[in-house]
Amino acid sequence: MSFTPAVSETGDPLLLTPGPLTTSKQVKSAMVRDWGSRDAAFIRINRDVLETLPKIIHGEADFVAVPMQGSGTFAVEAMLTSFVPRQGKCLLLINGAYGHRAKKILDIAGRATLVHETAEDAPPDLAEVDRLLAADPSITHVFAVHCETTSGIRNPVEATAALVARHGRRLLIDAMSAFGALELDARVTPFDAVAASSNKCIQGVPGLGFVVCRKSALAETKGNATTLVLDLHDQADALARTGQYRFTPPIHVIVAFHQALQEFLAEGGVVGRGWRYADNARILIEGMGALGFTPLLQPHLQAPIIVTFHMPKDPAFVFQRFYDELKARGYVIYPGKLTVANSFRIGCIGALAAREMRGAVKAVEDVLAVMGVSLTAPRAA
Amino acid sequence: MSFTPAVSETGDPLLLTPGPLTTSKQVKSAMVRDWGSRDAAFIRINRDVLETLPKIIHGEADFVAVPMQGSGTFAVEAMLTSFVPRQGKCLLLINGAYGHRAKKILDIAGRATLVHETAEDAPPDLAEVDRLLAADPSITHVFAVHCETTSGIRNPVEATAALVARHGRRLLIDAMSAFGALELDARVTPFDAVAASSNKCIQGVPGLGFVVCRKSALAETKGNATTLVLDLHDQADALARTGQYRFTPPIHVIVAFHQALQEFLAEGGVVGRGWRYADNARILIEGMGALGFTPLLQPHLQAPIIVTFHMPKDPAFVFQRFYDELKARGYVIYPGKLTVANSFRIGCIGALAAREMRGAVKAVEDVLAVMGVSLTAPRAA
Repeated sequence: MSFTPAVSETGDPLLLTPGPLTTSKQVKSAMVRDWGSRDAAFIRINRDVLETLPKIIHGEADFVAVPMQGSGTFAVEAMLTSFVPRQGKCLLLINGAYGHRAKKILDIAGRATLVHETAEDAPPDLAEVDRLLAADPSITHVFAVHCETTSGIRNPVEATAALVARHGRRLLIDAMSAFGALELDARVTPFDAVAASSNKCIQGVPGLGFVVCRKSALAETKGNATTLVLDLHDQADALARTGQYRFTPPIHVIVAFHQALQEFLAEGGVVGRGWRYADNARILIEGMGALGFTPLLQPHLQAPIIVTFHMPKDPAFVFQRFYDELKARGYVIYPGKLTVANSFRIGCIGALAAREMRGAVKAVEDVLAVMGVSLTAPRAA
Repeated sequence: MSFTPAVSETGDPLLLTPGPLTTSKQVKSAMVRDWGSRDAAFIRINRDVLETLPKIIHGEADFVAVPMQGSGTFAVEAMLTSFVPRQGKCLLLINGAYGHRAKKILDIAGRATLVHETAEDAPPDLAEVDRLLAADPSITHVFAVHCETTSGIRNPVEATAALVARHGRRLLIDAMSAFGALELDARVTPFDAVAASSNKCIQGVPGLGFVVCRKSALAETKGNATTLVLDLHDQADALARTGQYRFTPPIHVIVAFHQALQEFLAEGGVVGRGWRYADNARILIEGMGALGFTPLLQPHLQAPIIVTFHMPKDPAFVFQRFYDELKARGYVIYPGKLTVANSFRIGCIGALAAREMRGAVKAVEDVLAVMGVSLTAPRAA
């Protein structure tokens, strides 16, 4: 192969995936230490992490960050089962796998739900949501996904939040793949809680979820949870009283997350990071477009997180070979998860910038040539 | 200070704690890489971890290891709420904080319980357990803690298991701080599941719990769980079908755990590791005894995991100063958690051997001199 494979700082392929993603060498190297879980240095690091997270949504006055060991889904389940009371009812706005997962969580937990589902390439119909809320006063909460990683769509959380607030209901947001890259301003966008994780746009390693909670709303959740470990109220209470976790924290993951947050702030926070990801997405979409690939989403719906491309119809284009050849060139992409169309995905997030995205497009071009595929069809309008 | 502080390979104080503990440099350095969660290399590493764990209890024929993101308590809650059916009843053998925690988990989950509690320095009364099981046929499960970290006591799981089996009930074991160091042989000791975590006697970093489950018993648990993330049946099913986690795994923690398992096997598994820990405990107890400290437990009840010492009565012995002076000398010890006596604890586990334990005793001697404390009282019988 004449193509020189791309490698990360640690010699690994570049992860063009929605997270776990490529992190900086400094983030990973921060883990080569030992700490006790009651260690004062670790407790300071953890406190700094928890104090930083609400600032990212301009919520430092009214919000508290509650960490949840495990993964993003652990944080989402903790958020849903702590905030939606046992007699509550949650309207779910679904246009992908993560909305369906929230529904499953609430079903298992025995909470009443109502679903407003749209196609994976379409945002919720807010006029219909308006009618649903007006028609059913028993709905206490609304659940929305900021960026649905299934397609990469950016859902209208600001307009959704305003609508939900107008009806006097509470909004819970899954911002897993958006937190830190898409602006979310708690001063103007009303919501009770937003869940995310360490290994997405903040660019840490996986192992910690978190929920940034409106303090006044969290205070009302005592006794809602039906588990010990996923009880956000109890977790927040212990951390506030003692500075320590109720149960062993993933210390190394948290220290790496702290390093990742420093790098995030140094890059200019949401503005700086969001700009880089937007630039990554632009280079990717333009470059892939020039090679004949068509993105699933209309431009105004595309979040700069992960881009879904239609699978080419050329029979010479065999996805597994395309994937393997790209990986051999140092670029790991992501299979599709759509039900509406045969597709694959390429992520724009992680410790990657213009150079790496141009390299990825170049690698795709090389692989197409090797596979004997020419996508001469013009880019779809 | 004339005393040269001890440091680990990475320059950190030595953790004489029950875990998170001092790990080898190789274990931590294994984390300085990037992997995607669908990465074939990671999937192989994870599969190797899951195949190794049942072998540690000689259960490779009939048991399957089910990992649980989070911590040991996440694994214990997953075990209890997956195995004890909603109409089941669990008899808990409690002699410390971890037994009480299991009771709390079952209470929150709405499972019926019965408690047999003994003092923190006393094992369960198996004659009484026998009577309780005979008297109450509605008891479906018994929960036991192998080594109760509260005191460091080794509970009689083998005799308990035989008794529970004689009554035709099921045994669930919390072996958090014992797994890999205290022998547990599934060929002769009947139980349905045993829970532990990455950051105890296998000497990995924190962030992953696991439950080694009897396959035939796990197969009966479908639908028992009342959460999505803590459902062991669903977790095991997805891993068996796809080799992948349902929700993002703590990849770096798992890769470090894999390295820790290689080092565990190279040391001779349970026999080799158990021997080193026993030697550590012997050096510690003898050395501390010579300085005038008295352990809480009678020798035949002491597990070689963590040793509880009575707090000296000398008013010049101020624990916080003792702790700080020891930490300044490179040894981090652990506060007491007992209700029966004022105490502190020193762990014997982690990447520590005779040299470090002798160093710790020497540091204690130095600190006593600096504090002006002389514990001339002979060691209690």
